[in-house]
Amino acid sequence: MKKKILNNQITEKKIISHYLNKLNFNKIGTFNFKNDAAYIKTLKNKKIVITTDSISEKIDFFKFDNSKSIANKIITINLSDLSAMGANPFTYSLNLFLPNYVDNKWLSDFSNELYRLQKKYDFYLLGGDISKSKELLISATFFGNVKNNKVIKQNNSNINMDIWVTGNIGDSYIGLNILKKKLNLIDKKLKNYFINKYYFPEHSFIGSKIAKFADSMKDISDGLIGDLNKMLIKNGAIIDINKIPISKNLKKLIKNKKINLKSILNGGDDYELIIMSDRKYRNKINNIAKKNNVKISLIGKTIKKAGLIYDSNVGLNIPREFDHFS
Amino acid sequence: MKKKILNNQITEKKIISHYLNKLNFNKIGTFNFKNDAAYIKTLKNKKIVITTDSISEKIDFFKFDNSKSIANKIITINLSDLSAMGANPFTYSLNLFLPNYVDNKWLSDFSNELYRLQKKYDFYLLGGDISKSKELLISATFFGNVKNNKVIKQNNSNINMDIWVTGNIGDSYIGLNILKKKLNLIDKKLKNYFINKYYFPEHSFIGSKIAKFADSMKDISDGLIGDLNKMLIKNGAIIDINKIPISKNLKKLIKNKKINLKSILNGGDDYELIIMSDRKYRNKINNIAKKNNVKISLIGKTIKKAGLIYDSNVGLNIPREFDHFS
Repeated sequence: MKKKILNNQITEKKIISHYLNKLNFNKIGTFNFKNDAAYIKTLKNKKIVITTDSISEKIDFFKFDNSKSIANKIITINLSDLSAMGANPFTYSLNLFLPNYVDNKWLSDFSNELYRLQKKYDFYLLGGDISKSKELLISATFFGNVKNNKVIKQNNSNINMDIWVTGNIGDSYIGLNILKKKLNLIDKKLKNYFINKYYFPEHSFIGSKIAKFADSMKDISDGLIGDLNKMLIKNGAIIDINKIPISKNLKKLIKNKKINLKSILNGGDDYELIIMSDRKYRNKINNIAKKNNVKISLIGKTIKKAGLIYDSNVGLNIPREFDHFS
Repeated sequence: MKKKILNNQITEKKIISHYLNKLNFNKIGTFNFKNDAAYIKTLKNKKIVITTDSISEKIDFFKFDNSKSIANKIITINLSDLSAMGANPFTYSLNLFLPNYVDNKWLSDFSNELYRLQKKYDFYLLGGDISKSKELLISATFFGNVKNNKVIKQNNSNINMDIWVTGNIGDSYIGLNILKKKLNLIDKKLKNYFINKYYFPEHSFIGSKIAKFADSMKDISDGLIGDLNKMLIKNGAIIDINKIPISKNLKKLIKNKKINLKSILNGGDDYELIIMSDRKYRNKINNIAKKNNVKISLIGKTIKKAGLIYDSNVGLNIPREFDHFS
């Protein structure tokens, strides 16, 4: 769930703690809303991981965005949550709230993009529901499998754990700022690169492969810092800001002082994974990433003291060979 | 799914046939959107029945309806779909799209009504998602268990099957028409009776108990005739209009010519069940209903010829003892 304020008094956090928590009946798989996904146990204690997420006009996309991009987003945000649980998708259901302007072209592009992603990641549509509405709103509920019954929580880590981040962060956030006209880039190619990252984010699919070696995982939907803080309920972390993975194009912007690195850290919509794991698994994790052609960066470690410290001189002992792709 | 027209060209049926059907990948449990629920198979081929349904401001409820009523509706429509599959609920997830006017009172009433229904029917909230929106919209995805792995379809019946209806139909539809000021009742008690049936419909929970003896079941959300027609893809039916179950209060309105019976048949939001079953199970079904204190009425039978015939003189041979409660 994203932290959105409904009005001055009522935050999502309050809705959950005051009104929704009691409805979980303290059942194990629900995580009392403290996780982005939940699970149900079936026969022989096999677990099915379930996540549900929604996107809304004007909050998660612009009113007349291409429906391919909208299809991509509703799938990506949910696959990203499953990946963070260490799960692979197998099916999903859709709730479509469609306004009047939805036409055949819209539906055709939308369903074709769903089809493409279903084929790519091997899952099918189970069913759904269609309603009329003023604004375009979409919910999806995804069902995933986990290997060896291991469901990864997002806040399970002790101290001295490695903190990894997959891929690059910030590109999608730059794209959003260009579209909002808060940032102006003259270089068209560069501009399109970032806009495309906003319209078509890709989730980090590597969660299920790394699950075996991970204590905690979380996908980055609200920015690296925000999501990292959600993971640190038991402890704090030291982060080496120089290890934060960013694209070559974003490096250019930082060099030209178009943007500063810290502003990126609170951006959103990266859909990369933050992974916390025992340092004895460094090589294993690094090798899995390499094998799957996924960039992965060791950015820090958990510490006892609460809070987040930025420091590149505290001896994280991150070997140079872990900086591949950079 | 309800049949709602999005605009002149695009009906829900078209969206499903043209754009969504291909996304089912022809998997068995999906029913290709021809059922109100679907299932997934888990280990040992155990099935989990899944249904998802949404409600929208101005379509399924009025803008400032009491949030207790809204909570009741999102649960009732989904429990009703599960019941028609022969399933009992065990958990669900919620997607809330909340406008600015949602306040603490609203949330408190809403969550308390969810709590009451969860306790009553023994299921818990698995998780969910909260977003801002202009209109109030809610989706829920429900998970149910079936006994003996038997999932009931809605359109599986051959000819000469009994057609049953649980409870009474039409009361909720009358309530809606009073609220819309299309119908004016002077008798306050009578008026409140119908309005309450609209605000707090109850689903027919008996589906899982009757499943063993049923070929097809469907809940009535779009009116008896509309939903009966959806069940008759292989054949037609003869209905004895005098056997259509209606409440004593509705009988009064018909007697006073405030309303005619046929207009009721296309009303909606009854959430009773239509059941098709072999006539050899008449006594079994009747006894289950009696035991659970549920009214059930034998209203007709399936025939070879397509279409729906109203006739009280074709010898349905409905014994008088099946008219209990009437």
